[in-house]
Amino acid sequence: MTELTTELRERLATIADLEGACALLGWDQHTYMPRGSLETRIRQISTLEHLSHEMLSAERTGELLERLEDALPGLDHDSDDARLIRVTRRDYDEAVKLPPELVKEKAMVSGRAMDSWMENKPKGDFEAFRPHLEAVCKVCRREAEALGYPEQPYDALLHRFEPGLLTSRLKSIFDELKRDLVPFCRELFERRDRVDDSILFRDFDDKGQWKLGLMILGDMGYDFYHGRQDCSPHPFTTGFGIQDIRVTTRIHEDDFKAGLFSTIHEGGHALYEQNVDLSLDRTPLGTGCSLGIHESQSRLWENLVGRSKPFWRHYFEPVREIFPENLGQVDFMDFYRAINCVKPSLIRIEADEVTYSLHIFLRFELELLLLSGELELTDLPEAWDAKMQEYLGIRPPSPTEGCMQDMHWADASIGYFPTYALGNLYGVQIYNLAREELGDLDDQLAAGRLQPLKEWLSEKVYRYGRKYDPGELIERITGKPLSPAPFMEYIRRKYSEIYGL
Amino acid sequence: MTELTTELRERLATIADLEGACALLGWDQHTYMPRGSLETRIRQISTLEHLSHEMLSAERTGELLERLEDALPGLDHDSDDARLIRVTRRDYDEAVKLPPELVKEKAMVSGRAMDSWMENKPKGDFEAFRPHLEAVCKVCRREAEALGYPEQPYDALLHRFEPGLLTSRLKSIFDELKRDLVPFCRELFERRDRVDDSILFRDFDDKGQWKLGLMILGDMGYDFYHGRQDCSPHPFTTGFGIQDIRVTTRIHEDDFKAGLFSTIHEGGHALYEQNVDLSLDRTPLGTGCSLGIHESQSRLWENLVGRSKPFWRHYFEPVREIFPENLGQVDFMDFYRAINCVKPSLIRIEADEVTYSLHIFLRFELELLLLSGELELTDLPEAWDAKMQEYLGIRPPSPTEGCMQDMHWADASIGYFPTYALGNLYGVQIYNLAREELGDLDDQLAAGRLQPLKEWLSEKVYRYGRKYDPGELIERITGKPLSPAPFMEYIRRKYSEIYGL
Repeated sequence: MTELTTELRERLATIADLEGACALLGWDQHTYMPRGSLETRIRQISTLEHLSHEMLSAERTGELLERLEDALPGLDHDSDDARLIRVTRRDYDEAVKLPPELVKEKAMVSGRAMDSWMENKPKGDFEAFRPHLEAVCKVCRREAEALGYPEQPYDALLHRFEPGLLTSRLKSIFDELKRDLVPFCRELFERRDRVDDSILFRDFDDKGQWKLGLMILGDMGYDFYHGRQDCSPHPFTTGFGIQDIRVTTRIHEDDFKAGLFSTIHEGGHALYEQNVDLSLDRTPLGTGCSLGIHESQSRLWENLVGRSKPFWRHYFEPVREIFPENLGQVDFMDFYRAINCVKPSLIRIEADEVTYSLHIFLRFELELLLLSGELELTDLPEAWDAKMQEYLGIRPPSPTEGCMQDMHWADASIGYFPTYALGNLYGVQIYNLAREELGDLDDQLAAGRLQPLKEWLSEKVYRYGRKYDPGELIERITGKPLSPAPFMEYIRRKYSEIYGL
Repeated sequence: MTELTTELRERLATIADLEGACALLGWDQHTYMPRGSLETRIRQISTLEHLSHEMLSAERTGELLERLEDALPGLDHDSDDARLIRVTRRDYDEAVKLPPELVKEKAMVSGRAMDSWMENKPKGDFEAFRPHLEAVCKVCRREAEALGYPEQPYDALLHRFEPGLLTSRLKSIFDELKRDLVPFCRELFERRDRVDDSILFRDFDDKGQWKLGLMILGDMGYDFYHGRQDCSPHPFTTGFGIQDIRVTTRIHEDDFKAGLFSTIHEGGHALYEQNVDLSLDRTPLGTGCSLGIHESQSRLWENLVGRSKPFWRHYFEPVREIFPENLGQVDFMDFYRAINCVKPSLIRIEADEVTYSLHIFLRFELELLLLSGELELTDLPEAWDAKMQEYLGIRPPSPTEGCMQDMHWADASIGYFPTYALGNLYGVQIYNLAREELGDLDDQLAAGRLQPLKEWLSEKVYRYGRKYDPGELIERITGKPLSPAPFMEYIRRKYSEIYGL
């Protein structure tokens, strides 16, 4: 038994090392890689993914699992070993279903699509990008068929990012949220003159922004001895093992919010990854539980903490010291309202926490149509624009700000977007409990003490890594299933005050 | 036949991708990696090296080679395919001889030794480092035994860096060189007051140094679309495929030479790697022929070009414009003499081109003694210092500037050092021919035209990658075997003038 466990763990450690190397290839691609080596890089990533898939789906992995599963009844159901066997079984079954050629092809298709996206997005040239997106849709459809699904193909893709959640359930959650959120957004849009955020678009020195970001990351408990921050056009968090978790940010001198809130957001992802129990390193359990739960942590830090009054009770002064010319004369409540300004925006990653989910509804609905083939790719830009009009009342001037704005489709990550909105929902559910259990959380934040919250989250969420499914985890933590109601309640309370509803 | 070639090439491409990923793991380790993730990084590199070794030494590789070798007589002896089969056979035979455990252990041992070296070198704590060096010597001895050798264990290690060169032949070449070089150095040391290099140790702004380095790299023809320069404490060149070749440099504000000549040196390595024929990419032929030949290119650019009068006829003005305060009033010949100042130095990488080889003799002699066990590690610091006294007339104040100065031993690269001195020899042999064939090379350099030389070197050396052994290559290019005479002649001529002998 011990021997078999050791063998399985060694195999999984090799896979983890390959994945870690792969993640570094990706980090470098988005930070420092010279442009001319993209083709080389795509092949390297494709090769390493292929090797790791081959090793996971090898017959020997299956044999080890079968023999270890025989001994499962004798193990504590929640022990690391028992959970490791169950999660590996799920990954293995999935890997076995995917033919190696498909894995390799998907890596190549998405690598090339990403290249085309990077070239054509700035030009808004959807026609040049379209064949690549076509190839992505095709390979995703094949992937869904290969994986199988309980009700519809989208289930298979969603499952990879949010295990256990069915499309039909997701749809009903989104419908429930939409019913309340869309009219509430309209109410706020009608009162848009009540909040002025122009103070945030003055000239903010990049060194000052960088310094502020590092200070807050440090206060959050981000461990720079096991991580670092760099710049990239699209901020992201990545890891090459629990002891090397990196974040990136972007800095726009004419936009105070863009850099700061990216930094806090990625910092939330990074806190999660850095605080997974170290004993789970180099196993499939050594990372976040699902993208939805992951996003709950980035959004919890970015929005529930980082856009809250108590947080700014502490940070407003240091920020005014860094930017005395821009913010020295600004009133606290005007600043608080400005960073919480709600307005219809074309770009998802610039959206406020209220309208953000609308951007997701749109993408989720389009993905369903693209996957089923009901929507032709030639009609995508128009379909996108129509939905923007419907949900947000605005139309993108070009695909750059429309259907080409995100890298996710180029990256063949269909099924990924919904997890962003799920993050909003999980986040409030978890944060409500933190407030209850920590008691004086607002006072702690107002005193600049972010550590108790981080410790609480580590204890409740982070340390388990991927031991539990998201549905199981949220029940374990909060005693309740995923629900949009707490989020809606939070939004209504906070923004009714800000907009004087 | 075509099918077998394709299969072999695919296998080799996978290995090349693993090695590329491994090289990126190394680049990151020495540039941006957070210190706390070293242990993770060592394991990842070890795993990838293990996988690549496993794939190379697999039975299937042997079968493919055997069947392809049957067809060799029908192939043009110098064709890529024929050369690929021969070089792969050599790599395969070597890989098969090395047990996978040994490969894995060597990676672990050197990873840990490197860590200890980084920690203890600044403190000069040789005793703390010694057990790691002991482990390195042990693993290198095992490696030599596993690989086998014609005359002595050192042959096996040397062969990995300089294929085909025997220790006995190397020793006789070094002895010949030593006979002339050691007394010549003494003559120069006696006249040391004839050259004053103090102008190079003023305060040189780091931005100016960086700009100068990039300008010269660009003029040399370094392709920034397929490469980049970063900073690292120990400058190096690395590559992840022919289309991604990176250099690093270091900048010391109080030392004009350190950064500039590192940049040109690494630029020489990089030109070689960037100009290997692209059809050899992702094969074992897609890199430099040997470390000695590689070093010939870095030293050719650094010394024969970068410390020559014609080169500075062009660059002296731009450099004076970048540093008007430091160099505006300096006379051309004083500057030329300063950058060619010869003095006994403790640190190899700071040594001038005359005394440099003495540092190598010392290391080569100590490596032989360490490998044979004639020298106990406890006695290494004293043995080092004694040889420094003998060759250069100075003694290091501590192991930091003595036997702990280089990373090579920590990296388990015993057998590597001699290739630096070989580079000096090959370099002059090749450069002499370039002067003959290019005719007006000095005029070209004086006009700032470095491209014709680069093109000539690409044609004669770079494009072949690893198709030929170093011995074969130098004969093909110059019609003569490796010899120390041209180097000694060059040194004598140049420095007799500078020092007025």
